[in-house]
Amino acid sequence: MDRERFEKQKDFILEADKEKTVFRQTHLTNHGRNEDDAEHAWHMALMTYLLSEYSDEKIDVARTMIMCLIHDIVEIDAGDTYAYDEEGKKTQEAREEKAADRIFSLLPEDQAADLRGIFEEFQEKKTPEARFARAMDNLQPLLLNDSNGGSDWVEHGVSYGQVRGRQDGTKNASKDLYQITKEILDRHLESGELKDDRE
Amino acid sequence: MDRERFEKQKDFILEADKEKTVFRQTHLTNHGRNEDDAEHAWHMALMTYLLSEYSDEKIDVARTMIMCLIHDIVEIDAGDTYAYDEEGKKTQEAREEKAADRIFSLLPEDQAADLRGIFEEFQEKKTPEARFARAMDNLQPLLLNDSNGGSDWVEHGVSYGQVRGRQDGTKNASKDLYQITKEILDRHLESGELKDDRE
Repeated sequence: MDRERFEKQKDFILEADKEKTVFRQTHLTNHGRNEDDAEHAWHMALMTYLLSEYSDEKIDVARTMIMCLIHDIVEIDAGDTYAYDEEGKKTQEAREEKAADRIFSLLPEDQAADLRGIFEEFQEKKTPEARFARAMDNLQPLLLNDSNGGSDWVEHGVSYGQVRGRQDGTKNASKDLYQITKEILDRHLESGELKDDRE
Repeated sequence: MDRERFEKQKDFILEADKEKTVFRQTHLTNHGRNEDDAEHAWHMALMTYLLSEYSDEKIDVARTMIMCLIHDIVEIDAGDTYAYDEEGKKTQEAREEKAADRIFSLLPEDQAADLRGIFEEFQEKKTPEARFARAMDNLQPLLLNDSNGGSDWVEHGVSYGQVRGRQDGTKNASKDLYQITKEILDRHLESGELKDDRE
């Protein structure tokens, strides 16, 4: 066994642990506390396994799962940028790029290149796997928030148009899951948790 | 899309969310708070992807990853049983069996059978995938605890013999990772965080 190689892998594994301390705006079911990045990634990977049948295109489930597991790792340095934080989103890409440089380079070179490639594939949304992972990234907090009566939207005064725009990613991955998404949003528009900003 | 099928998948996905509120005895790096089951499972699946090269036998990485993701789901009902809680371990199997019956049956029948099968494969430790997942289940908290100077062992007054016994699972999956494990334990025996119970 190459000990130097293992030490690098260990350094990355221990660094990744910090994802458990990056908190998101989404709350756990039963009006629980805020969710952290590791929990969110775990849930997305599990959902990928269970819901891959709804992908419009055939996907490599294993690749999509690892993509889900690591997609937020840059937030260790860059922090979570809330989906509707327009100021934060202006600097998000540069912050995340810098973080990716630092964090992936902890790994042995071959694995650094592999995970960086998977991370960038997710960012670019050009493959069926990236599109499906993105759909999970949308649907997972949507299901939690829906189970809590839309309280995350109410807290942030989010509008129907904002959420619809964001959920477009799901439309590109799965007609079925987009249909589910649309029904959830329409229901919360109807009952007032989402502000009505339609023309 | 079969809506009844999707509703069952959604029920399971929302039920699984409760893993985020089952806390373990292990603490996060940098002497953080206790870790929860979802975070632990996420970390194990990521480690499987990175460390599969050390498996003594060829493993199906995707199957091992999903095994890691769901291996603790029964703890939603049965709670976490600390590795060195000899009383709790007496009733652990019965408690976990009952939980598996309830939780997996939330899913559509085909997926319930599939995940239950993967869960039982993990319990039985007879396949290379189950043995490697078990090694991750041992190594993940070991690395966190080692990074914290062995404070989890000190807190529970755990002995060298107890930990060595537990880590035998790693020996059956990977000579290399067992070597790493042994070095970590020997170091903590030497420096006194593990009680010396050798004859």
